Amino acid sequence: MSEVRKIKPSLSKGTRDFLPSEVAKRNYIFNTIKSVLRKYGFEEIETPAIEKLETLTGKYGEEGDKLLFKILNSGDYLSEIRSKKTEIASLTSQEITPMISEKGLRYDLTVPLARYVVQHQDDLAFPFKRFHIGPVWRADRPQKGRYQEFYQCDADVIGSNSLLNEVELTKIYLEVYEKLGIQVSLRMNSRKILEALAEYASCKELLTEITVVIDKLDKIGIEGVKNELSKLNLSAEQQQKISSLLQTKSLEELTAVFENIEIGKKGIEELNFVFKNTTAQNLVFDITLARGLNYYTGVIWEVVFSQSTIGSLGGGGRYDNLTEMFGGQNMSGVGISFGIERIYDVLEELQLFPENITQGVKVLFVPREESVEEFTFQQVQMLRDAGIPAEIFLGNVKKQKQFNYVEQKHIAYIVEIGGNEVESGRFRLRNSQTRDTEQDLTISDIISRLS
Amino acid sequence: MSEVRKIKPSLSKGTRDFLPSEVAKRNYIFNTIKSVLRKYGFEEIETPAIEKLETLTGKYGEEGDKLLFKILNSGDYLSEIRSKKTEIASLTSQEITPMISEKGLRYDLTVPLARYVVQHQDDLAFPFKRFHIGPVWRADRPQKGRYQEFYQCDADVIGSNSLLNEVELTKIYLEVYEKLGIQVSLRMNSRKILEALAEYASCKELLTEITVVIDKLDKIGIEGVKNELSKLNLSAEQQQKISSLLQTKSLEELTAVFENIEIGKKGIEELNFVFKNTTAQNLVFDITLARGLNYYTGVIWEVVFSQSTIGSLGGGGRYDNLTEMFGGQNMSGVGISFGIERIYDVLEELQLFPENITQGVKVLFVPREESVEEFTFQQVQMLRDAGIPAEIFLGNVKKQKQFNYVEQKHIAYIVEIGGNEVESGRFRLRNSQTRDTEQDLTISDIISRLS
Repeated sequence: MSEVRKIKPSLSKGTRDFLPSEVAKRNYIFNTIKSVLRKYGFEEIETPAIEKLETLTGKYGEEGDKLLFKILNSGDYLSEIRSKKTEIASLTSQEITPMISEKGLRYDLTVPLARYVVQHQDDLAFPFKRFHIGPVWRADRPQKGRYQEFYQCDADVIGSNSLLNEVELTKIYLEVYEKLGIQVSLRMNSRKILEALAEYASCKELLTEITVVIDKLDKIGIEGVKNELSKLNLSAEQQQKISSLLQTKSLEELTAVFENIEIGKKGIEELNFVFKNTTAQNLVFDITLARGLNYYTGVIWEVVFSQSTIGSLGGGGRYDNLTEMFGGQNMSGVGISFGIERIYDVLEELQLFPENITQGVKVLFVPREESVEEFTFQQVQMLRDAGIPAEIFLGNVKKQKQFNYVEQKHIAYIVEIGGNEVESGRFRLRNSQTRDTEQDLTISDIISRLS
Repeated sequence: MSEVRKIKPSLSKGTRDFLPSEVAKRNYIFNTIKSVLRKYGFEEIETPAIEKLETLTGKYGEEGDKLLFKILNSGDYLSEIRSKKTEIASLTSQEITPMISEKGLRYDLTVPLARYVVQHQDDLAFPFKRFHIGPVWRADRPQKGRYQEFYQCDADVIGSNSLLNEVELTKIYLEVYEKLGIQVSLRMNSRKILEALAEYASCKELLTEITVVIDKLDKIGIEGVKNELSKLNLSAEQQQKISSLLQTKSLEELTAVFENIEIGKKGIEELNFVFKNTTAQNLVFDITLARGLNYYTGVIWEVVFSQSTIGSLGGGGRYDNLTEMFGGQNMSGVGISFGIERIYDVLEELQLFPENITQGVKVLFVPREESVEEFTFQQVQMLRDAGIPAEIFLGNVKKQKQFNYVEQKHIAYIVEIGGNEVESGRFRLRNSQTRDTEQDLTISDIISRLS
């Protein structure tokens, strides 16, 4: 630790520290999701934070490439450029970047999954059902609720076309949010139905553009949608066809409309299969759901929190070309993600975190003077040896500091130790909440009391 | 996902993917350590991967600074330099780096802890007992067992001078390695004893140099040590004094030698206190243990695996100036770390991982044909609803693929479903290991059988 300079410490923008209570709450979310996923046969994997830029670049569009955090090469990177007779003075930032940076931080967990599956395909059991919880990094402008380093949680099935995977993932969604106590509605649609909609309005070639417009429906309303569609040179009739379809509320209504559109019939059939095998109140067909179109090829989900407009708590869909970008054989995949950061905010706002998850040890032993510390420690150790989480307070002797300690660490009981206790071997157990006490307990009494 | 280029995927050097079985084994290590630490009142924290370079630089020595991964600034970073009329052509790599990079990846968990404690001191309960498990990054040359991205696991107590913290940490070390089934010996020494040794040989001012030499004893032997000491211009008498002390095996022997050396008496007293309050066979005083001297100020530990020379499985010590580098008030700290990557290697080599940790779901239902898939799914769902981890196999119909799946995911039971089973509602449960079967079970039978 040479050259110690004193600076006022601060975080890099868009990053966070987590206090012990926050880590406990985040672990509660992670563990709830993990326990459900494991019950369904999903296994956890991990990939590195650092990936080669050749793995990451070109996967997220031009805008995404700009948001990749790039790591500077080690060593004398400029002299390597100079040795190739390249004039550094004339280079732009964009030109020099690939010369001085070969790796970056992962932008999501999906591209690493694609690389992983192609690279390890001989070591994996297919259908490969994996989940992955971990941080990703984006050089986005930080703002409330948006960070440069944040967690994603994805569950995917790779290598099975069966629609029962969609059913399983729907059930997983419902079970996780129910366990967390968050009332959600699960909006579902299919890319196939959106394709059929474009075909029905005779503008198949504009599928991408149309879905971008549909995605804005919430914000701009149906008249706004028509207006945007007219900018795409769609006729009044075409606009009318689309806007009337967007008001469809059930798959039954659609059946007649798509009578002669194969892809539409297929989309309806698939969603019907999922609905039939899931049977849940909060499952909603929503033809206006159009997320991530270029990526998805079948069923798509979005989890919406019923009690406010905080935005999506999760989403996913079926995709067909995941591993293709790395030269893998074309394996169909389907996956969902959990919006962990927003789930945290909802649980916090509605005070839905269970109280016990932030609980520290069960009991704090407080020695009244230094001369009884060793004795106190021995008592505490007996509790620990019996498997009971316990602490000895070795801090400031001020009562207020001790109270703060108990309160901050949510410790349920306190035992104070002085000369009397050492002599008698009898202790007073005080409930830190109710202040009720039990007297004359031996250490065995306390052990059986707290076991 | 525009511009899809097909490239053979590979990892960035010195990084790793983890297969499901590896994640399960790593989680087993983490959970074992966490459970012990929680019992002792330690709480988990998290800090970001990305820190400002001003936080990281100058803390790890010149060599360490070179090993920091630095993140390239976003946007048009070169034009910012040019706008300041700086001639880029004349800059060296070292000069340009601080102009184009403001953040880096954390190098360890200790400097982030110091920043964290100073920044959040009003929100923390002191003594602050925290643990942190997470990846750190170093631009080291990768080699067998050494990675650029690897995990550290640290437990520290900040803000208490009591030696009972040393006792607790010693007990934690012993308990963790015992739970993991790894036979270790815990070597202990004190920086105070090393200081006394230098004073005894009348060369206090050479403390750092002498301990560097002592650290090499294992490799160069006692004659080598003497030789190196002579290079430091120590007289034959001084060399003799040091080399004879290095052969001391017990604190008792030292007591007479340090009779008039205050710091030595203090060091002996402290270690005696820890030994008395710990009482363990595998706790060894080792005067030749000299790790991390510039950093530590009191007791130091090293965990050595008894059955091979794999190197240290952990280490730690008391330090007194942790928060000073960030202008915090001088708080004493003491901490230990667990060498997670090496612990993994030892457990793997000795086959000490419990079998059940890599177990997947309890039972796999295999539909013999597509027409019975929905029925099969319903049966599986009944098990899941009863809390039993279960799967339906939706993959390749080849028997061999199914066997592989069961084997790779360590699934205990198999139930095959065909027309007969659908009709009768009676199933055959086959143990995938012993191949024993039970016939004529209803789904309720299976549920109570596997609960």
